[in-house]
Amino acid sequence: MTSRIGFVGLGIMGRGMVKNLVEKNHPVTVWNRTPEKAESLKKDLNITIAPSIKSLAETSDVVLLCVSDTPDVEDVLFGETGLANGLRSGTTVVDLSTISPAASRAFGKTLAEKNIAFLDAPVSGGSEGAAKGTLSIMVGGPEEAFDRVKPILEAMGTRITHMGPSGSGQTTKLMNQILVVVNMLAVSEALLLGRAADVDLLKAVRAVEAGAGGSWMLSQRAPQAIDGYWQPGFTIDLQQKDLRLVLESARELGLPLLATSLVHQLYNKLQKDGKGGLGNHALVQALEDLSGLKVHKA
Amino acid sequence: MTSRIGFVGLGIMGRGMVKNLVEKNHPVTVWNRTPEKAESLKKDLNITIAPSIKSLAETSDVVLLCVSDTPDVEDVLFGETGLANGLRSGTTVVDLSTISPAASRAFGKTLAEKNIAFLDAPVSGGSEGAAKGTLSIMVGGPEEAFDRVKPILEAMGTRITHMGPSGSGQTTKLMNQILVVVNMLAVSEALLLGRAADVDLLKAVRAVEAGAGGSWMLSQRAPQAIDGYWQPGFTIDLQQKDLRLVLESARELGLPLLATSLVHQLYNKLQKDGKGGLGNHALVQALEDLSGLKVHKA
Repeated sequence: MTSRIGFVGLGIMGRGMVKNLVEKNHPVTVWNRTPEKAESLKKDLNITIAPSIKSLAETSDVVLLCVSDTPDVEDVLFGETGLANGLRSGTTVVDLSTISPAASRAFGKTLAEKNIAFLDAPVSGGSEGAAKGTLSIMVGGPEEAFDRVKPILEAMGTRITHMGPSGSGQTTKLMNQILVVVNMLAVSEALLLGRAADVDLLKAVRAVEAGAGGSWMLSQRAPQAIDGYWQPGFTIDLQQKDLRLVLESARELGLPLLATSLVHQLYNKLQKDGKGGLGNHALVQALEDLSGLKVHKA
Repeated sequence: MTSRIGFVGLGIMGRGMVKNLVEKNHPVTVWNRTPEKAESLKKDLNITIAPSIKSLAETSDVVLLCVSDTPDVEDVLFGETGLANGLRSGTTVVDLSTISPAASRAFGKTLAEKNIAFLDAPVSGGSEGAAKGTLSIMVGGPEEAFDRVKPILEAMGTRITHMGPSGSGQTTKLMNQILVVVNMLAVSEALLLGRAADVDLLKAVRAVEAGAGGSWMLSQRAPQAIDGYWQPGFTIDLQQKDLRLVLESARELGLPLLATSLVHQLYNKLQKDGKGGLGNHALVQALEDLSGLKVHKA
């Protein structure tokens, strides 16, 4: 039997996900805080708009959420007009947002008392991955719930991994974010040295990228920084939200995340300078400001 | 006409390089500070042993060096019994060691006055790459000299790049070393978070390695750290020598290499603990010591 899917959160990620669900013939009912976004999406896609979150909850077998941050998920789940008021026993909730692993575990526990399965399922691959249905999805929570919703996740992503118990999807996503930003700090320092010594930077990137210094950030983002192209794959503002989650976890767990913390501080400076909307590879601009050099030759 | 090749420095890297040169039918004469290493290599390979560096210089069209550090190269070139006493006008010297870019430029300038071309040509790929002939070689110096020796370099490596003027090969190598160690710090912090949250670390590595968090260090070294396998691809002691060169360049050029400097400090601690002979991925052990956690589950 086809599951009736409810989808909450039609930001740039959510819209791409819904498009892929509909194109792969899943029946989708949506709700969004800003109703205009739902109306606009309905012009292009065969979807139903729910009059309220409660109504969406009552008519769905699986509810997917994709919102911004921990308090947003909490509000959608447990707010005065939240999902928990309408969800029936046996429903599965899949949270595609990136939020606190500890909060995810707590939400899962609360919902389990009503026999509602909760999966933390943060994604990576950005808005492009959401639009193309090529996201990586890292899932924590009960395995039987994962098995039930896997065909739905496969409509949105190409690399779907059940990581383990509740919260482990979020932790894996935070591990990914550490790698992304610290690898970009590595790229930034290498580019700065090369520029100061007047090396052909793109040639240097191509000379080393296949070896032990190689990374996705080096191959994809270093050439953009060299070109002075700062359009976001993922903005500094969103990256900072995720780093805040990483550093909260580090505090809870007593971990010295030295380089991650350093990147967070450098991004603070860029945000103050009004650069929060630039791509996260604009990290190099913080080191440019400290050194008086420009990686991009204007 | 086949160039007569002289080779100075039969450490683990040099021995692999000479083997590949001989197997590809280049005539090689060697000299080594410790004569036993040359005698031992002669048992396996068709090579000539020069009685002195001066004699090697006099009978070579191209001299390759592979020694440890800037003072070693200076000594081989300009010491009392060094190459400069025997090299003829028109000879090319290729320095495969990783040394200071500024010193490389100075050596090149001094030799150019005697019409001797000097190329800085540091390699990456480690002892395995040297043995297999799959090194990356990043070359700085006069282009016509590069063109002359390129067939010789191709016997030892698969990715040979002429980077630009004298010193630019060394700078590119130092950029590579920044990327290697800071990417490993990224891996170390990600693994630490995952372990503290009790995530299946290898599963997490495989879930994220194809995306924006991916790197050579993540795919190749994180699994070794998880297994508690610390055999060196490249030792901490050698890595520290290269980081010293990076940080000297940073000082000369006025650069704030924040994360690279951080890694250097963490390695200082591991060297003090007697771990300088471990692989550079043992960086994670410095964070283990700070957190009281072990990434490897014994």
